[in-house]
Amino acid sequence: MTDFGYQIFAQDGAARVGQIETAHGAIQTPAFMPVGTAATVKAMTPESVRETGADIVLANTYHLMLRPGAERVAGLGGLHKFMNWQRPILTDSGGFQVYSLSDLRKMDEAGVTFKSHIDGAQIHLSPERSIEVQNLLDADITMAFDECTPFPATEEVAATSMRLSMRWAERCRQAFVERPGYGLFGIVQGGMYADLRAESAAALQDLGFDGYAIGGLAVGEGQALTFSTLEVTVPHLPKHKPRYLMGVGRPGDIVGAVLRGVDMFDCVMPTRSGRTGQLFTPNATLNIRNARHADDPRPIDADCRCPLCRNYSRGYLHHLFRAKEILGSMLATWHNLTHYQDLMANLRQAITEGGLNDFAAGHARAGELGDIERL
Amino acid sequence: MTDFGYQIFAQDGAARVGQIETAHGAIQTPAFMPVGTAATVKAMTPESVRETGADIVLANTYHLMLRPGAERVAGLGGLHKFMNWQRPILTDSGGFQVYSLSDLRKMDEAGVTFKSHIDGAQIHLSPERSIEVQNLLDADITMAFDECTPFPATEEVAATSMRLSMRWAERCRQAFVERPGYGLFGIVQGGMYADLRAESAAALQDLGFDGYAIGGLAVGEGQALTFSTLEVTVPHLPKHKPRYLMGVGRPGDIVGAVLRGVDMFDCVMPTRSGRTGQLFTPNATLNIRNARHADDPRPIDADCRCPLCRNYSRGYLHHLFRAKEILGSMLATWHNLTHYQDLMANLRQAITEGGLNDFAAGHARAGELGDIERL
Repeated sequence: MTDFGYQIFAQDGAARVGQIETAHGAIQTPAFMPVGTAATVKAMTPESVRETGADIVLANTYHLMLRPGAERVAGLGGLHKFMNWQRPILTDSGGFQVYSLSDLRKMDEAGVTFKSHIDGAQIHLSPERSIEVQNLLDADITMAFDECTPFPATEEVAATSMRLSMRWAERCRQAFVERPGYGLFGIVQGGMYADLRAESAAALQDLGFDGYAIGGLAVGEGQALTFSTLEVTVPHLPKHKPRYLMGVGRPGDIVGAVLRGVDMFDCVMPTRSGRTGQLFTPNATLNIRNARHADDPRPIDADCRCPLCRNYSRGYLHHLFRAKEILGSMLATWHNLTHYQDLMANLRQAITEGGLNDFAAGHARAGELGDIERL
Repeated sequence: MTDFGYQIFAQDGAARVGQIETAHGAIQTPAFMPVGTAATVKAMTPESVRETGADIVLANTYHLMLRPGAERVAGLGGLHKFMNWQRPILTDSGGFQVYSLSDLRKMDEAGVTFKSHIDGAQIHLSPERSIEVQNLLDADITMAFDECTPFPATEEVAATSMRLSMRWAERCRQAFVERPGYGLFGIVQGGMYADLRAESAAALQDLGFDGYAIGGLAVGEGQALTFSTLEVTVPHLPKHKPRYLMGVGRPGDIVGAVLRGVDMFDCVMPTRSGRTGQLFTPNATLNIRNARHADDPRPIDADCRCPLCRNYSRGYLHHLFRAKEILGSMLATWHNLTHYQDLMANLRQAITEGGLNDFAAGHARAGELGDIERL
């Protein structure tokens, strides 16, 4: 194994505060990873991403292998240099986007053949090629290539899909090139079925990974089913490895998952919402395009430290979105990522102080208050 | 008159280095004003605009009166607070955009009636209303409302148009509310006709303005005619007031106009070009979308201090533009504005050192070299 490391500093119930060590630095957990699909967190400079408090970003293997191409990124010095982010990077395996974005042509034991959504080129992706691409990108954390089990799925379909992913996980484990500070994560599948989740978690541990992701959630099953599936999955994962819930989620989803022992998250929610004028506050998610904001001199969130809340009125941001100005997307994304990173910092503090349950209850209560009244 | 001030520190031929004092601080001249049409320099934060070296930005009266509305901006504390730019702001009069963007309905001695290009609303703009709007916006430098003389125009058409603008200039002078640190600029018109330019310059000086703009250029007449018109206009302007050439231009146009005694410039060139992937360097203007940049590890301009040139390869910027990523527009705009501001700083230094002719010759020679060779 590599010297890729994970330490736990504090626990509160199932929740943990810890630190992941990688070749490009440390990640405080619980951690939220902004999504930088095409080697950029949309509408943000890497400096501003760091100012929000992010330790790590996620980049998408599928997008980068199609454009600009993994070999090209490698030729330009790897993803960190390419995108000017010298801190940790996690890459997904490409599997999820093959199913959601491309025209899938053929899938079998070997892997998948699909048509690029960009230029229609026919591409083959296998566990071995996914690992090779992530190596070319120089990802600090490489994800195993898996099949995305559809939802809903019968137990038989979920079992067949999960077992294929476990065979692919073994091939990923074989293909992964060990390097100091670089880690490979396995992905637990099994749909919403407790027995299958336990079987998948055990199969992955037999292979041995540097961290364990929980895949196949945030696919439309709803928060209750997400949480109940976590409750039958996390206890089967090793304590001393980081746990990553893929593609989650809204702030309340993250709080609930941290309570259930999850350490890492990624989601396009703060960035995508920012570009459409949806702003997160402790009390509500507000749509800045709404006419009620046009004359409002107040900030989005008076307690927020981001540049948008420190320097601009709701009236100005409303104007920027109405006028379709790029600065609107820039500032709203910056705010939302700051909101997410401050939530993670607050979660880490609450766990450290043994007050996570109170924090979670307060977070939920605040979320029911609704936006501040119109002037 | 107000205490709006202009001092000359150095001269070299017709060119001058000076400083304009305003209510929101000083402007080093010769100055380039980035265009912030809708109360934002597109794809830039105000902090990054300042980092490029800009002392002042231009905002568009026409756009802001239509959206969000001048009274609304005033209600939110004025344009400086609205857009978080605490330094000088110049607003144009709205006249140029009425002709170029709106469906003009009626024009007479009183002013113009037009249909908004945003929602079709019928709007009236007069010298008095233009000055009122610019006052509501809290512009440090207010521009007189004039008619944009078409090009080409017969001498008769140019004379009639110019004389209307001079009568409007008098009404602007009357309507302008004097405040310490706030200035009003008149605009010389007269097409490409030396006698009309001289007549216009004299008429404006009879009224007395804090600065004198040269309008009706950069309308497709070509650089030679721009320069020859400057040569028959600038000598008729008072020495101890700033001179502003509106809507100019490419770097070579600016150098030539500074040589002919101009102190201030504005143009959408660096910002608009940035958003379309046109990058200025001392040797060439390059199109980063061109495939030859895809694998190029070198910066756009190795001697440039901007974040794009310090931190990113041509290959990365090429990728951002191909992938239509917002960060591409952000970084390219930042570079182009830095290129322009560094040009202005170099011009100021050359004038101060008495070496402007050599600098201009060197600038022209460098511009003929073309882009660096492909790797």
